[in-house]
Amino acid sequence: MILINGIAEDRINISDRGLQYGDGLFETIVYRNGVLEFLDAHLERLITDCKRLKIPFQDSDDLRADLLTVCQSLRAEAVIKVIITRGSGGRGYFAGSDINPSRIVSSHPLPNYPDSYYQQGVSIRFCQHPISENTVLAGIKHLNRLDQVLARNEWHDTNIVEGLLFNNDGDVIEGTMSNVFIVKSGQLITAKLDKSGVAGIMRAQVSELANVLALPVNEATISQQELLNADEVFICNSVMGILPVSQIVDINKIYAVGTITQQLQNALQKLGK
Amino acid sequence: MILINGIAEDRINISDRGLQYGDGLFETIVYRNGVLEFLDAHLERLITDCKRLKIPFQDSDDLRADLLTVCQSLRAEAVIKVIITRGSGGRGYFAGSDINPSRIVSSHPLPNYPDSYYQQGVSIRFCQHPISENTVLAGIKHLNRLDQVLARNEWHDTNIVEGLLFNNDGDVIEGTMSNVFIVKSGQLITAKLDKSGVAGIMRAQVSELANVLALPVNEATISQQELLNADEVFICNSVMGILPVSQIVDINKIYAVGTITQQLQNALQKLGK
Repeated sequence: MILINGIAEDRINISDRGLQYGDGLFETIVYRNGVLEFLDAHLERLITDCKRLKIPFQDSDDLRADLLTVCQSLRAEAVIKVIITRGSGGRGYFAGSDINPSRIVSSHPLPNYPDSYYQQGVSIRFCQHPISENTVLAGIKHLNRLDQVLARNEWHDTNIVEGLLFNNDGDVIEGTMSNVFIVKSGQLITAKLDKSGVAGIMRAQVSELANVLALPVNEATISQQELLNADEVFICNSVMGILPVSQIVDINKIYAVGTITQQLQNALQKLGK
Repeated sequence: MILINGIAEDRINISDRGLQYGDGLFETIVYRNGVLEFLDAHLERLITDCKRLKIPFQDSDDLRADLLTVCQSLRAEAVIKVIITRGSGGRGYFAGSDINPSRIVSSHPLPNYPDSYYQQGVSIRFCQHPISENTVLAGIKHLNRLDQVLARNEWHDTNIVEGLLFNNDGDVIEGTMSNVFIVKSGQLITAKLDKSGVAGIMRAQVSELANVLALPVNEATISQQELLNADEVFICNSVMGILPVSQIVDINKIYAVGTITQQLQNALQKLGK
């Protein structure tokens, strides 16, 4: 089921600024066991980031009603994608103040990651495509996703689950669809996202779980060398949860699935996710 | 009139990757006196940049047919916008190889710039929003246009025609919808677009005209100081042509409309544009 501004339809006017300029943002939320996981965190980020993009979407009541309608139509667990655009109209890039944001809610099959991914870890690779840098857009899950599209389409091997994106300094920023954590000497580090990257809901959740488990966690620059020297590496997002990285295929680098990653997986599972 | 893949309709499926990820590019072409201005140059850039984005749009025959249909429906001069997206489908960012690009052709009123803009010049401003940097995407007129949207929405004063975007080093890159040239001691300089910016059709045309007129023209870094020290400054795009800059309002900087700008305006007019 797809709702556009609360109405069941699957097509949008081409004048929508989401299509014209990528002028909007999105969330992907897991619906499982009758619950929209981390819903409040997703909606909070959506509203905060609309504010950063000056999209006047402040009240999520209509969106919550849409989510209820879509979830009630589902017979199985699903991924719910919410897109908010600045709306339809304006004169070129100028939007003015008299257009209303569009909201699009759609449901998609929940990817079925095998248990082995969680237990033995996954293979990932390095992407050649560099990540764009912009301090104002950094962290926002906006609709300007050419970086991720070009990076993700560098490989077709289905055994490779994720590709890492680097900035121009050669520092690791994130995966095409996930955030990255490394563990070194008992300390968790995830990339600082002040110039690029998406500040994922699961990334924030992992940091919270680390705090609960009294594991030190920092946001910092992660050089390629620090990645290679890490004791453990894992990737995470709202849909996959936490996946240990067992291998970086380009460079034949192998990691063991470590105890801190497992502790965090267990803590996440106890939340029922 | 709007054609989507050759069919008259104004709505597109929300699964189109243009909306989902800004996964596409566009051209804006002036239709005037029964002619699509610089059509070959626009189509050539479109196909070249599709190649850079690995969008398999190689043959413009269908697009040329769409353009003919739309232009035949028009009773006045217009701006024709062409959007090519990677198409509908794929699994997340992964597009695979079995989806077909979407082409969207729409007509819009030609903006009516007063004669005074061409003769006395226009007022512009500096934008606070920094331009994103990415060597792979630089130059392409792609659909990831949040930079331009955020920059253009910094001002509402209709007397200000354009805003300039700077990179993180403080160098001038372009306007929100135009390219910039400065003239210093008889030499034309336009910003190097190796890390950011859109390589406009009119920018290339101005360089060609400069060559014909035996005026030296270079692509180089333009610092804010070089901009302020310039003898002449002008902005250009396919729709507006060449507009002298008479004033940068933020800093009360005034420029005279110079002879080189006028020479280029005259040369462009002789092409019938």
